[in-house]
Amino acid sequence: MSTSSCRRVGLELFKTVPRPQRAHRLWQAFETSQPQKSYSRSFTFQVALRQSAPRTTPKPNPTPKPRIRQISLVAASTSLGLLTLLSTIFQPISPESIEPPTEIPSSPSAETPIGGGNDDGLPRYRLSEIKEHGPKSGRPWVIYEDKVYDITEWVAAHPGGEVILRAAGGCIEPFWDIFAIHKAQYVRDILEQYLVGKVHADDLENGRPLQIAIEDPFGSDPERDTRLRRVTEKPCNAETPGDELAESFLTPNETFYVRNHMWVPVIDETEADSHGIAVELPDGEVKMYSVGELKARFKQHSITAVLQCSGNRRNDMTRHAKKTNGLQWTVGAISCARWEGVRLRDVLADAGLSLGDPGEDARHVQFSGLEAYGASIPIESAIDPRGDVLLAFKMNDKPLPRDHGFPVRVVVPGHVAARAVKWVNKIVVSDEESTTSWQRRDYKCFGPNETKQDWDKYKSIQVMPITSAITRTRLKPEQPDTPRTPEPLVPKLAPTVTTSGRVVQIEGYAYSGGGREIQRVDISLDGGSKWDQANLLDDTKQEQGSRTWCWKRWKYEGVLPDVKADANGDAKTTFVVKATDDAYNTQPETHKSIYNLRGNLATAWHRVDFDCKTGDCWGEKTKQTK
Amino acid sequence: MSTSSCRRVGLELFKTVPRPQRAHRLWQAFETSQPQKSYSRSFTFQVALRQSAPRTTPKPNPTPKPRIRQISLVAASTSLGLLTLLSTIFQPISPESIEPPTEIPSSPSAETPIGGGNDDGLPRYRLSEIKEHGPKSGRPWVIYEDKVYDITEWVAAHPGGEVILRAAGGCIEPFWDIFAIHKAQYVRDILEQYLVGKVHADDLENGRPLQIAIEDPFGSDPERDTRLRRVTEKPCNAETPGDELAESFLTPNETFYVRNHMWVPVIDETEADSHGIAVELPDGEVKMYSVGELKARFKQHSITAVLQCSGNRRNDMTRHAKKTNGLQWTVGAISCARWEGVRLRDVLADAGLSLGDPGEDARHVQFSGLEAYGASIPIESAIDPRGDVLLAFKMNDKPLPRDHGFPVRVVVPGHVAARAVKWVNKIVVSDEESTTSWQRRDYKCFGPNETKQDWDKYKSIQVMPITSAITRTRLKPEQPDTPRTPEPLVPKLAPTVTTSGRVVQIEGYAYSGGGREIQRVDISLDGGSKWDQANLLDDTKQEQGSRTWCWKRWKYEGVLPDVKADANGDAKTTFVVKATDDAYNTQPETHKSIYNLRGNLATAWHRVDFDCKTGDCWGEKTKQTK
Repeated sequence: MSTSSCRRVGLELFKTVPRPQRAHRLWQAFETSQPQKSYSRSFTFQVALRQSAPRTTPKPNPTPKPRIRQISLVAASTSLGLLTLLSTIFQPISPESIEPPTEIPSSPSAETPIGGGNDDGLPRYRLSEIKEHGPKSGRPWVIYEDKVYDITEWVAAHPGGEVILRAAGGCIEPFWDIFAIHKAQYVRDILEQYLVGKVHADDLENGRPLQIAIEDPFGSDPERDTRLRRVTEKPCNAETPGDELAESFLTPNETFYVRNHMWVPVIDETEADSHGIAVELPDGEVKMYSVGELKARFKQHSITAVLQCSGNRRNDMTRHAKKTNGLQWTVGAISCARWEGVRLRDVLADAGLSLGDPGEDARHVQFSGLEAYGASIPIESAIDPRGDVLLAFKMNDKPLPRDHGFPVRVVVPGHVAARAVKWVNKIVVSDEESTTSWQRRDYKCFGPNETKQDWDKYKSIQVMPITSAITRTRLKPEQPDTPRTPEPLVPKLAPTVTTSGRVVQIEGYAYSGGGREIQRVDISLDGGSKWDQANLLDDTKQEQGSRTWCWKRWKYEGVLPDVKADANGDAKTTFVVKATDDAYNTQPETHKSIYNLRGNLATAWHRVDFDCKTGDCWGEKTKQTK
Repeated sequence: MSTSSCRRVGLELFKTVPRPQRAHRLWQAFETSQPQKSYSRSFTFQVALRQSAPRTTPKPNPTPKPRIRQISLVAASTSLGLLTLLSTIFQPISPESIEPPTEIPSSPSAETPIGGGNDDGLPRYRLSEIKEHGPKSGRPWVIYEDKVYDITEWVAAHPGGEVILRAAGGCIEPFWDIFAIHKAQYVRDILEQYLVGKVHADDLENGRPLQIAIEDPFGSDPERDTRLRRVTEKPCNAETPGDELAESFLTPNETFYVRNHMWVPVIDETEADSHGIAVELPDGEVKMYSVGELKARFKQHSITAVLQCSGNRRNDMTRHAKKTNGLQWTVGAISCARWEGVRLRDVLADAGLSLGDPGEDARHVQFSGLEAYGASIPIESAIDPRGDVLLAFKMNDKPLPRDHGFPVRVVVPGHVAARAVKWVNKIVVSDEESTTSWQRRDYKCFGPNETKQDWDKYKSIQVMPITSAITRTRLKPEQPDTPRTPEPLVPKLAPTVTTSGRVVQIEGYAYSGGGREIQRVDISLDGGSKWDQANLLDDTKQEQGSRTWCWKRWKYEGVLPDVKADANGDAKTTFVVKATDDAYNTQPETHKSIYNLRGNLATAWHRVDFDCKTGDCWGEKTKQTK
């Protein structure tokens, strides 16, 4: 294949197809490309990590610019579907390095070197041979630099799921160029143990094979509000800043936190109503609905619901326990909006599901999104008349923004936002959970000691446990007409003790899943020794839905305790917040006790260090001056 | 009234009346005797406690045996109903004294002394005058010794609710003789501040008024299994011992924990099927059902459900935080049984309630029991098709034992057992909660600092939060054929360090309300530093119901850590258990953080001190040798 036959893949390939029939074709192609029963593989993510020590001494990273060989992806991928092939990327995982391996791995079962032997003892393969180890080969290989890796064993352990398969048969660098998150030594270490050979010298130029050019699918991502705190760029993960969280009950669409696993699909506004969703029942019957049809035929419902990432406050766990593997969110991977759409249960009933007796085969409802993300919820949640699960078109009275699922997303109130699949185009009622790693692996919690993760041991996170956080602290200006003790906050000649006596204002949120209402928020200004109750804001007029799906904002004003100043003159105390819901669930006291490698559900008491003298606080990673 | 007109009140008065019409009359009488809107009173229990310092120097307790004047209760009480009058007792409260008052109380608004003045400045009242301050007078008085108290302000604060009113107009001692729990100085202190005068000398004999004889209603209580650990005798409150908890998934009826607020109503087995339940809808419509009719007309359902007192493990909170006011349960105020009966929702629907749209007036379902206890649950719980709320007739395949509600009780799985009203004879669908103090006061949790309890601030405990407990520990016998380190457990010449190395077996339970399944139990043998997971017992074959209403038993076997021996040669370590449910709710780490005056929901990690050398443990109040 020569460069002359190349054609750059246009961004239009990332756009959805507007007609239901075409959407149907798309997911059919997607379905076809997914290997069956992949989860029966016993190899696990963690086991892989423990085996990640490189077998050979790592070489310095050679960085010659690879020649770009542009090929006709369109021609090469008709059987898989264009979008499917372009989905050949990795799910982002944490930029943080994972815990160092504690065991020396056994040698992987590399194939016996055959043909093209060399002084390094590794076999040489032609690109044509490697290409045969494609997504459907059953023994997928990838090329990195000039080396060939058999990733068969790794697929099931890949945090991004089986989308990795779509890189099979060729070079992996173009995908890593996009998902830069993979450019970390630990990813190289993992790959290294699957080394099976090298690319044949006849297919190398300047020591590198020709590579496929892939246009950056993130190029068409929407503009984002500069107030959002970026955690990763591609895909975009960005949290709502504390001030915005404190400011309003309904988070404005512009500052609603963004959690993307991939790029943002492009759907033209004029084609939104013809975007299609396929609904499949356990008997295999499929019924197609366009967004326009859903809007026209079903009753519209509004609910006010929080969406929260399972990793919200993960950075808190990292700081207070130890390193966690995942996006280092502070307190802003949570937001609240009013959602409007149709009830999933109404649509399922229309599609033919008996809500009264859905049957033994109807145990889960799986959702797939246009960008290849997928997840599921239990049937009970899906059809609960008081569950309020929506196929939502509107967010805070406006059409869904592109970052939040335009033209239609699932909203599963009270559940982890990972189930609220965006850009949904397929719904399957099944006897099993979604087979994606986002369903069966990523969103689970293990015990503090459980570094070997038996993925089937625990349930996927669905209903969220209670949490709370401080989002804003302000040292109240001193009243000029209020006589105060004349002594300075930090006496110049006695820097070890200070009596502040000043008033601090603290704001924050508390939230519990499952529709549980927050009924008490306890505040401590001295690290948890003395407690008082915060004032819960009455936002009830803005609440809608069968249960309490929203958060409770709170405010507290109190006199700072007397604290000792340290050598630098900082007079530090620790603010603590913990909440109680109407089932009297409370938060765990320490992150240490709920530590898990993935840093999920970091719901321990929220602690913020505060300088009584200056009003500075060290809530998260950095000291922030208020 | 002379002693010649006396008639002893027979125990048959405590028996139920078998015909529905008679049951209907009973609760009508009960209803009539209840003052309306009593909860609008702002006076609270805690305020009362804080005002409980006696206004006058307490006098030494004079204890002359009062003369007994037996009167015809039957004649005197026709308007109230016999049972109602005999219900004139106090709800048991904790034998533990309450926290000492921290504020000097303001003087109660005692009435200005009038008539019969004396050198103590207190007015004197004739018994006939006092009798006019009866239950319905609006200004109830009681006599204790020779003194008269206006308890108007106290009624709303009385932990036993308004049943205290039925002592109004006469002496209170006969009731305290039965509910000996009141014979505590703090109860006297509370009463003392309501002193308004003394009994007129003409009505005294040896310095005491004549008193009414009341036959002990507990005389007909059933025999109880001697294995039950008694917490109070009258009423009977007794917990299941640890060995029994560990032994079986379904707690045998004989050792199922007993929580009685009063005596056990007597219903003859031959009359069980004619016991009546009145069901009242918001429109006032009442429909009567006999137990026989319920059994015949409605589908029978079986569920396996835990019942747990909100005070389970209260003694743990007392030990680890500070004194709590309530029955000092250890880990045995919880048991699990299979319940069989009819669904409440089916009965409500039959009575005319629209389950699909019960209406704005249908917000709570109130239950009353024959012995005057009452409580309610939210309508959503009552009519939830997956809520499994039963009117149960059977317990572990046998008719309900008398202690557990024979012939019919409510079972509200996943909720606090305080809602599972026994000997139920009235069900009211209402726009408000049951007005009893058991609904609106006793079963709530306040913040650790909240000693002034604003009862309307928090919701009644319904769905139970997650908890767990160690019920049995055993030091595994050393294997004679296993060579061990020859050094003794406690080296004779070095008593400060011991290496035990022996294996301990630990058993226990974990439970979460709301139908949530336990998915992980973490165990630490070293006080919470290192963790491991317990083996969850598979009792799934015995589980029945729409959700997981039962507990999870667990076992753990581990090697004891190396511990230092103290001066006595005891080598103590602390075992800890904490659990996680399928919504990833976890237990709070310390009782201090969830402390509340009533000691409700003592769900912190369960800690048991263990002597590695002897196998002794100090799980609860006393050291127990295994």
